[in-house]
Amino acid sequence: MKSTAIKELLAKQPIGETVEVNGWVKTFRSNRFIALNDGSTLQNLQCVLDFEKFDESLLKQISTGAALKITGKLVESQGRGQSVEIQSDDVFVHGTADPETYPIQPKKHSLEFLREKAHLRVRTSTFSAVMRVRSALAFAIHSYFQQNGFYYMHAPIITGSDAEGAGEMFRVTTLDPKSPPVDEKGEVDYSQDFFAKETNLTVSGQLEAETYAMGLGKVYTFGPAFRAENSNTSRHLAEFWMIEPEMAFYDLDASMDLAEDFIKQVISYVLENCQEDLAFLEKRLLDEEKSKPQNERSDMALIEKLKFIVDNNFKRVTYTEAIDILKNSKPNKKKKFQFPINEWGADLQSEHERFLVEKHFKCPVILFDYPASIKAFYMRLNEDGKTVRAMDVLFPGIGELVGGSQREERLDVLQQKIKELDIDEKELWWYLDLRRFGTAIHSGFGLGFERLVQFATGMGNIRDVIPYPRSPQNAEF
Amino acid sequence: MKSTAIKELLAKQPIGETVEVNGWVKTFRSNRFIALNDGSTLQNLQCVLDFEKFDESLLKQISTGAALKITGKLVESQGRGQSVEIQSDDVFVHGTADPETYPIQPKKHSLEFLREKAHLRVRTSTFSAVMRVRSALAFAIHSYFQQNGFYYMHAPIITGSDAEGAGEMFRVTTLDPKSPPVDEKGEVDYSQDFFAKETNLTVSGQLEAETYAMGLGKVYTFGPAFRAENSNTSRHLAEFWMIEPEMAFYDLDASMDLAEDFIKQVISYVLENCQEDLAFLEKRLLDEEKSKPQNERSDMALIEKLKFIVDNNFKRVTYTEAIDILKNSKPNKKKKFQFPINEWGADLQSEHERFLVEKHFKCPVILFDYPASIKAFYMRLNEDGKTVRAMDVLFPGIGELVGGSQREERLDVLQQKIKELDIDEKELWWYLDLRRFGTAIHSGFGLGFERLVQFATGMGNIRDVIPYPRSPQNAEF
Repeated sequence: MKSTAIKELLAKQPIGETVEVNGWVKTFRSNRFIALNDGSTLQNLQCVLDFEKFDESLLKQISTGAALKITGKLVESQGRGQSVEIQSDDVFVHGTADPETYPIQPKKHSLEFLREKAHLRVRTSTFSAVMRVRSALAFAIHSYFQQNGFYYMHAPIITGSDAEGAGEMFRVTTLDPKSPPVDEKGEVDYSQDFFAKETNLTVSGQLEAETYAMGLGKVYTFGPAFRAENSNTSRHLAEFWMIEPEMAFYDLDASMDLAEDFIKQVISYVLENCQEDLAFLEKRLLDEEKSKPQNERSDMALIEKLKFIVDNNFKRVTYTEAIDILKNSKPNKKKKFQFPINEWGADLQSEHERFLVEKHFKCPVILFDYPASIKAFYMRLNEDGKTVRAMDVLFPGIGELVGGSQREERLDVLQQKIKELDIDEKELWWYLDLRRFGTAIHSGFGLGFERLVQFATGMGNIRDVIPYPRSPQNAEF
Repeated sequence: MKSTAIKELLAKQPIGETVEVNGWVKTFRSNRFIALNDGSTLQNLQCVLDFEKFDESLLKQISTGAALKITGKLVESQGRGQSVEIQSDDVFVHGTADPETYPIQPKKHSLEFLREKAHLRVRTSTFSAVMRVRSALAFAIHSYFQQNGFYYMHAPIITGSDAEGAGEMFRVTTLDPKSPPVDEKGEVDYSQDFFAKETNLTVSGQLEAETYAMGLGKVYTFGPAFRAENSNTSRHLAEFWMIEPEMAFYDLDASMDLAEDFIKQVISYVLENCQEDLAFLEKRLLDEEKSKPQNERSDMALIEKLKFIVDNNFKRVTYTEAIDILKNSKPNKKKKFQFPINEWGADLQSEHERFLVEKHFKCPVILFDYPASIKAFYMRLNEDGKTVRAMDVLFPGIGELVGGSQREERLDVLQQKIKELDIDEKELWWYLDLRRFGTAIHSGFGLGFERLVQFATGMGNIRDVIPYPRSPQNAEF
């Protein structure tokens, strides 16, 4: 007999049929009621045992976490809390879970405790819900781009190029760690390393994505990126996943339109396809926030917040307008900002972004046309000579969700910029080739996947939305 | 006016409408006919110029590789080779491509030459076709799993675990490369490294995927994997993408059923959605093979071969049966194998796999129940005590496309095996926990994505199916 997933059983409800299910015991009450979960859905299936029919020794093996195969008739449930249940005829114990040692017991565990048990935490309702939403978001992203004429491109992970300068990098090597070969000058001789040069883990696939956009038109990457920064915060990971669409013939306005539509569509997808998980996560968040002071609680419940994003336009504001708003804001005047805003050109900190999004506009904001001096070398210079066609999408509670720009397509302007920044042009020969041969305006942006998962699930710590978080001093599993 | 993708124009053919297209010049004939390509499709759009209407200086800027925006009326084409064309009213040159220096000219370039120009090669028909098929295959894989109740799981890329033993690893570090800190024993002091331990790039996400299957039921990974092996072959990459589904409550038979259905569905998807690209690649392959001796040419053309896979059952053969076939085979008796097959227990080499698939069975073969001694520690021991529930899916021309197994779910058997192999049990504490708490039969397999792309596109060298190949001494771009 073939087993059926609990999700399918609950959807189809083949009342009266004998079915077989596999799963793990969530709870076992009164030697009679098993709540069985197989991960296919948040919901458990109630399996009722007539305990007189089963050996005492078998019943003793049934406890939270045990893996069972149960066969029996699916009937309408007499009890409350479920519409159907199984009258269990046969119970096979795949594996037990000793209540004395199994860490995931039916009680509230702290998220910190569960981080130490990252190999088991997906067996809890919270983490299984988060990871199902994560999976749905990933698929929504692929679906959106594929349906809109984009091609998926795998940017390289190991890179011999370190010109992007988006952050500190991890070195990738097979040289003897203790006594690496040295050259005549006494420097490490990377010509003897695996790739015959110094190589690092990518911080962004953007530059390579540009090479593909200039052939395939519209492409997107979806892959891991790495930052070797010593930031032990709830918003940073050393290893994270990033989505980077890159579009030939798109100016910044087209790119902003795309970013907004993309985010809305992806969130719509999970609203439609993850209702149970989102409802559970919304309740979890409400419970968690009960212990917080009123002013730190969310204005909206999770699902309401997601719907708000889908239904409202993102506010588009230039950096210059934003600086004016910030300069004249209450917190600036009352010196409540850690970094006061005194003049045009200041880099915006998280506190400023949050003020704009959460207090001033009360909706997602796209800031654009930033000062060239605080943005990357490849961003297109505006005619004013001092701002670049950069944009950041700022989200309530999350801050920067998307960062992007129109790319500098003019060879001479780009070369000048590279020179000013003292970047070695030889490192970027292939990137400059794009401006030598068939150059055209083009734009793109990057979305930190885990930030999006955080936003969609309401999880406060980024380490709780990726299976095995990597952070300073932590690469367990 | 909004631009339209050429793919869309050719599909909808809005005859009589004025349209705007962007793209790159493939060819420019008689100062009159531009073949414009924008990467959305293999097909070019013919744009006709009335050269008397345009400046000489503008016409001079139009050459292969130049990026143009063209506006004009879409009309039925009078010429042969296309159904519609644009009567160009306006031509804007985004960027030129000097014929003296632009490497991608309208002539045949060798694949080797184009590998040196990996940032430009996607502008050729061959590589754009390969990369569109690659993108479609990736989406087909996600779609298949999502529609079949699997959740996408991101396994960690940086791993502190080196127990899988699938191959040589790349070290990931931020320690001073020249004079790393050393401990009291004079060994490198990894406690001072970024993760406070020695870390490497993953060779497989399987072990972590198992932890998620034991909570979510059915999961799959799709991410990069790395092997620091010094193999400069047309079949190996140091960085490649891998898909690893892992299923709780699946035995090996169920896993073989899944692998076969999965491969067929994914190939069906590209047969349906990539007809033009496949037709082009089929022709390319035929041309390439014309220069080869008859006996080295493919038996079937590309599309016929893909259809054959979809329409025929994979042959399932035990290792023991395969050894009998090989022992009694002509090449073995005539000592034509480089590694003669003398006895049960021999590891199968590529030559043996190819004989079975290409000469003996003439169809994809799933070999299963291999000797324990030649397979990994985590594979489930059969009752005979000497074979394990391993399986490999072998494909014509490609060899091993999929490798998988039922996993050893019994704690004591697994511990014994780990001991025999002298693996440190402490390294695998979390993996063993899966057998301590709610263990159950489970299975999974790994598919090398680039091998699949090679098979679907007919490309002979694996470096030509990934944007930026990484191999010994090569990490350009």
